[in-house]
Parts: sequence; structure tokens; C-alpha cells
Amino acid sequence: MKKRQLLSILTLFLGLTSLNAQTQQDSIQLRKLYDVSLMNGQSYEWLRTLTKDIGPRLSGSAGAEKAVQWAKKELEALELDSVWLQPVMVPKWTRGTPETAYFTTGSLEKTNVPICALGGSVATPVNGLTAQVVEVQGLEDLARYGKEQLQGKIVFYNRPMQPDLIETFHAYGNAVDQRGAGAMEAAKYGAVGVIVRSMNLRQDDLPHAGAMSYGDLPDDARIPAAAISTNGATLLSKTLKSNPDTQFYYKMSCENHEDVQSYNVIGQITGSESPDEYMVVGGHMDSWDLGEGAQDDGTGVVQSMEVLRLLKATNYQPKHSIRVVLFMNEENGLRGGTKYAEVAKEKGQKHVFALESDSGGFTPRGFSFEIDDANFQQVLSWKNLFEPYLIHDFKQGHSGADVGPLAQEGIVLAGLRPDSQRYFDYHHAANDTFEAVSRRELELGAATMASLVYLFDSYGVK
Amino acid sequence: MKKRQLLSILTLFLGLTSLNAQTQQDSIQLRKLYDVSLMNGQSYEWLRTLTKDIGPRLSGSAGAEKAVQWAKKELEALELDSVWLQPVMVPKWTRGTPETAYFTTGSLEKTNVPICALGGSVATPVNGLTAQVVEVQGLEDLARYGKEQLQGKIVFYNRPMQPDLIETFHAYGNAVDQRGAGAMEAAKYGAVGVIVRSMNLRQDDLPHAGAMSYGDLPDDARIPAAAISTNGATLLSKTLKSNPDTQFYYKMSCENHEDVQSYNVIGQITGSESPDEYMVVGGHMDSWDLGEGAQDDGTGVVQSMEVLRLLKATNYQPKHSIRVVLFMNEENGLRGGTKYAEVAKEKGQKHVFALESDSGGFTPRGFSFEIDDANFQQVLSWKNLFEPYLIHDFKQGHSGADVGPLAQEGIVLAGLRPDSQRYFDYHHAANDTFEAVSRRELELGAATMASLVYLFDSYGVK
Repeated sequence: MKKRQLLSILTLFLGLTSLNAQTQQDSIQLRKLYDVSLMNGQSYEWLRTLTKDIGPRLSGSAGAEKAVQWAKKELEALELDSVWLQPVMVPKWTRGTPETAYFTTGSLEKTNVPICALGGSVATPVNGLTAQVVEVQGLEDLARYGKEQLQGKIVFYNRPMQPDLIETFHAYGNAVDQRGAGAMEAAKYGAVGVIVRSMNLRQDDLPHAGAMSYGDLPDDARIPAAAISTNGATLLSKTLKSNPDTQFYYKMSCENHEDVQSYNVIGQITGSESPDEYMVVGGHMDSWDLGEGAQDDGTGVVQSMEVLRLLKATNYQPKHSIRVVLFMNEENGLRGGTKYAEVAKEKGQKHVFALESDSGGFTPRGFSFEIDDANFQQVLSWKNLFEPYLIHDFKQGHSGADVGPLAQEGIVLAGLRPDSQRYFDYHHAANDTFEAVSRRELELGAATMASLVYLFDSYGVK
Repeated sequence: MKKRQLLSILTLFLGLTSLNAQTQQDSIQLRKLYDVSLMNGQSYEWLRTLTKDIGPRLSGSAGAEKAVQWAKKELEALELDSVWLQPVMVPKWTRGTPETAYFTTGSLEKTNVPICALGGSVATPVNGLTAQVVEVQGLEDLARYGKEQLQGKIVFYNRPMQPDLIETFHAYGNAVDQRGAGAMEAAKYGAVGVIVRSMNLRQDDLPHAGAMSYGDLPDDARIPAAAISTNGATLLSKTLKSNPDTQFYYKMSCENHEDVQSYNVIGQITGSESPDEYMVVGGHMDSWDLGEGAQDDGTGVVQSMEVLRLLKATNYQPKHSIRVVLFMNEENGLRGGTKYAEVAKEKGQKHVFALESDSGGFTPRGFSFEIDDANFQQVLSWKNLFEPYLIHDFKQGHSGADVGPLAQEGIVLAGLRPDSQRYFDYHHAANDTFEAVSRRELELGAATMASLVYLFDSYGVK
């Protein structure tokens, strides 16, 4: 055997040994992260406080402010290297007194239906608004009816989320244009109001809130927009078939206010080797006002806090600077995510990785990545490390709204992908409470996130 | 090019084309099964009737009998080729009046704790039973304490399910010997009763029922056995640390009766090519008595019924005879599963495949198989067909209790493997109700089962 041959075999052998040793070390570290999260986790008790003691946290509300102060204090207690508040101006919208709605047919008997104002909507007149209803299956139906049939009417968007789509976020994506742009588009045809079937795959009595926009419509052209429960939508639709002249009444006193001061909450473990390269893990602090903001996105908040706690609890000293960022105002403005990226750019802070949890605290299945090929191949090489935890779904796709503004050459963006089947049972509705969250599912998610952060920190972003 | 070469290339080409066409046809058939289940499913409404109108179905109870008659009628309405009841004698145990339990320390103040009798347990004396408590971490501790410390005492088994095990069934398997054999073993050391920490990973106030056995112990050596809620167990354990002489009192009036007549419910679509080869899909009809038997195993019952309905609704004519079998008495005797296998053997009915759903109606993740290598390789070749439905977990392991007695050369046994994280939140407890089940999760499971049945029917068992 020639010396060169021997050398290359030796190199290969040493390489394999070192690879195996490294893989074994990774495997041990992941096991530690899951063990601490499942046996001695903090995320569930944090979630209890955030949902039960603090409660709903719409941007600009007292709850949002209370949550900011609470998170800062909790992160300080973790003895991170630094914790601070990053100021950001946010929109403020208030729901006012609870909405009422009913419809009447020829008999004039009132049938009450559960509605809620959509976020950003203007109010109805003080005594409410009554008009005939035109049911449509989406924005594209408006042109077909035209001004002559929509003028003075309430447009009722009733296209359901598609049950046959396996991932419920796809069904949401296919239906939510009705909520977001329904009022803006209907107003152009002279409609006086809109009601939108709730983004919910179940039949129940809960209206689901969520953001809408008037785009560039002048103030006096803006019409009130509400969500109606799926049961209410089904009943109304059925009634309209036999009574096309059904009158719908609703009253809402919601209001848009001046922007107010709020904050992103940030905590950092400073890196030992590349302190000027940043990795972010985050969720959003704000929530809609009807429930307790548990699955959206209390779980993402406490999981992100837990990631830094788990790294410390397992005595892992990161090479890069790892930040937890609790973004304000994802729901109706994305001001927090936008501000964070702006400040990072201004300060020339090089961000190489960002992970968001904003798809619920259900059993984690994997991640979706905005990522180049080299880094995606690296991720795929870690699949076997995740197998014991039943994490199997690694794909390219949308990461998260708040980390989105960080997108640029050289950064990997990731989103935790939990099981999505039950997410829209709770999303933006009154039942999005602490009780909707399974402790184990939440804790598995936190450990899964911490594992990905650990691996990217160890091996770096290519 | 020689003629033979040309021929073999042609054969390969035709083979690939035919393979692709077949794969495409399979892919279309799976899509149909999922579409019908998710958009026009029957399983959820069946479950509503089974849980809400019929309710708990312990073997020998009126509920069990009502469920048998209901299922027979529903299967007849599906216009299967045949539907019948298979008689089986089952044990009958009744809980009697609700149990009471408390403990007292020196102060004599009573602290009530939630308990329930374990299935098969004898009653306490009519006025209850009071004794000091010895807390142990498992059966293996008994010898260490010995007769001198256990005589006349109540043994309190308090080893929790392990939260660090990712699959909760492993945690159950590691803890449930305390429930099954705790009374039998403690009686041998002169203990007068046992209480067992509920098989539950959560801390809450619900006692979880389940089977126990006295083995060969004579009647007069049998001591009463109860489950205590996890909160109750934690409180009692804490109290014992500061008050080792704590007295525990409990009263139970449960009773074992003579065996009674019951039935497995069976429906069949007769095969078009191999009518004398049978494929079974099933769940168990009986349930514990505290809840409504929803996740255990109402979901398995209605999913199994749905499999046959889906095959018919998609106009699939099976080659083999496909049977739905709703087994009686899985929980405390396995008489139904045993009887079904006995009759099949007596009649020389060749069974080639059996699939059970008895791990809850949660999001399906895959299957575990008792299977030989050739058939397992065949299963793995179908993985890509399941990918669009996020079904990824195919492994060798336990299938299901009821199909177990069918095990022999030449049969493939399979168990649906849903996500297991929340299963023991409900298992055998009062909260195992209709509301614990997600419609989408249930329907995805039914379609996943139907897909596997379709594939084994199409390609056969090797």
C-alpha cells in the first residue's frame, strides 16, 4: 500500500470517527433539551400566567403593556447577558361594547347570530345598520353582481375553508382574502357593510376575529366589517334561499385610535465565537381580544423564551449571539417585526438565522424554511437526529410573518410546523384559552425549536 | 441491437409505464378516500350517537347491548353483503354507588381525594376500610418492605408515567403493572387494600379506571383496588412525608357477577377474486364506565365502520372479503377478540390481514405492524402514496389487542398509530367524551385506515 493511500484511508477513518463522535454529541444534546423541557419545563407555567393572569393582548391595550413588562422581568430572571425593550409605535383599535346582530324575514321575527367586528373596521351608525343581504362566494363574484345589485346592500362572504386540504393553513390561505379585502372591494360597488363567514373548519357558534384593510379608501367610503360564526353563516345562507329579501341588522362601536407606544421584548445570550452574528427565535406577544391569545401566539412566546432557558439549563454556550424576540403587533400591522429588522439594518447587525413559532403549540412535526440549497441540504443531514422525537417534516416554504422582514442574502428563516388540524378551531376566537393547549405538545415544540437553534449554532449557516 | 435486448428494454419500459399507471391509480384512489372522509364523512356523526346517545359501554351493561344493536342497524344500512352478531360470553363487573375516599392526619381533619374502583376489584367492607398507608414506587418495592411493614396496611403505588418518553404508550407500558398486578402482589404481603396513581401524564383531579387482576388468589385473599387522581396522589405523597401515620379511608361497592351473553358485531363486503381470504378492520365496542368511551375506543369503532363505507362510496370492489369487526370486551377480558379468532379457526377461514384502531382518534401518523420482511418491504414501497397526508411512521411493533389472537403464519397484523400526546389525558377517565375528539383528526384516521386496506387488498399479502 502506498503511503498516500494509507494516509487517505487514515484521514477517512479519523473523519468518520470524528463525525460519529460529533453526531453522538448532538444526539446527547438533543436528548438533554427534550428531557429538560418535558421533565422540568417552564413553558407551561409561563403560558398560564400570560393567558390567565394577563389575558388578551391586542396592540395598544393594557394587556399588551402588562405582557411586555412581565416578559422583561421573566427574561431578566433567566440571567441572560442582556434584556431590553425595543420601542415601536403600534396601531390601536378597540372593539367597544359587544356587537349585536340579527336577521329578519317577512315575519319580522328576529334571529340572533353571533358576530364580531373585524380588526380595523369602522363602527356601524350608533343605532346599527340594516340592509338586505347579497351572499357571494368570494371577491370575484362582486363584478358579476355589479353596482346595481350591491348598492345599499350588505355583502355576505360565505365561501368556507376547504376541508379536503390536509394542511389547514392552505385552507386558510384560500379563504382569508374575503376577510382581508372583502370590505374594501364591496365598498367600491356601493355596499354599506360586509359580513364574512368565520375562518373556521368547524360548525360552531364562535365568531373568529382577524385583520381587515380598507387599502386607500377614503374615510367616508369605509364600511363596517364583521365575522359571523359558521353556524350563523350556514343558517343565514339557508334562510336567504327561501327569503331573498331577508334584512340583516348589526351594531358595532369599534374604533381606530392614534398610534401608541409599545415594545418588542428582547433577551440575548452573547456568542462565544461570533458575538456579532445573530440568531433569533421568536413569537408574537400581541393577540386578538376575544380569547386569551393562547395558541395564537402565547405558545410561540413561551416556547421562544424556553429555548434560551433550555440552552442555559443544559449548559450550552452558544457560538453566535442568540436572541429571543417577542414581537409586538403581528396581528394588525406587523410593526414589531418591521421595526426589529430596521434597527438590525441600521446597526449593521448581521443576522444569520431566525426561527418563529406562530402556528400553534400543537405536536411539532417539523419546520418550513426560506433557505438556499446548501443550507437545506445541511438541514436534511440532521433528519436522523430528530427521528426519535417524531419530527419528520422538513420543507421549503413560508417561515413566519415577524421574521419575514429580516429576509436577505445569507440568512436562514424557519418556522415551526406543528400539527395543524385543530389550529383554526381556536384561531382568533373566544376559545383560544390556556385550556386549549396541551402541556406535552407545547413542551415538545419548545425542545424541537431549541434543537434546531443548537444545530445551526453548532454548524453555522453556510 | 439484438432482438433480445430490444425485447428486454421494451419489457422494462412497459413495466415502468404500467407501474406508473398503477401508482397513479393508487394515488387517485387514496385521494378519493380522503376526500369523501373529510368532505362527506359519516364517522363523526356516528361517534356523536355512540357517545352522546348511547354513552358508556362496559361489557355486560345496558349501554354495551344498545351499542351492539345500533351498530348492527347502521351496518345494515350500508348495504354490505352480510351483517351479523357473533355471540360471546363476557364478564360483568359493576361499580355500584360512587366511591368515597379521604385521608386524615393527626388532626383528624378529613381531606377528600378523588378515586375510582379498578375494574374487577372487590368491594371494601360495607362501611369502608381504614388503614395506614405505605407508599411504594412499584411492585419490586414490596419485598423490601416485607410482611412486617405491609401487613394490615394500604399499599399506595405512586410511580408516575415517565414524561421524557416521547411516545406516551411507552410511558403507559412502564407504569401500568402497578394497576394490573398491584393488588395481587400486595395481598401476598398481607396488605388490606391498594390505591394506585392514575395512569395520566397530567396533574388533575380525574381518577382513571382500568383493568386489574387477582391471578390465582383465592376469593378471601382478594383486597380492594382503586385508582387515585394524580393531584390526589401528589397530595397524599406529600402528606405522608410529614405524617407517616396518615390514615386512608375508602368505600367501594363494586361487584363481579356471572358472565353474560354479548356479541361482536360483524359486517362484510364479499371479495370479487378471493372471497375465501379475509381482511379485518376493527375497534372495540366496549368502554370503561366513567366517560363516554370516545377516544377509547368509540373512534376506532366508527373509523372501522367508515372504512367499509368509504370503499363503497368510492366504488371500490375489493378482491378479498373485507370485514369490519366491532369487538366486545377488550377492556376487561378480551373475550371478543379471542372468540373471533376461535371461530375463524374452527371454520377454516383464512385471514390474511387485520387492522385495529385502538390508540385514539388523534391525527394519524402511521401504522405499526406485526409482519414479515417481504410484506414490510411492500408497505415501505407505499410510503410515497401516504406522504401527501403526512403519514410517515411505518414501523414493526405491536398491532392491537383484539386482532392479536389472529396471529399466525401468513397474516399481517397492523395498528393505526395516531399522535399519542393527549391520549392519556382522557384514557379511562370521565373526560373521555365526544368533545375530546377532533372531527378532522378522526376523519383523517378513517381515510388512512381505508387507504391501507385498499393497498393490501389490491396488491395482496405476500
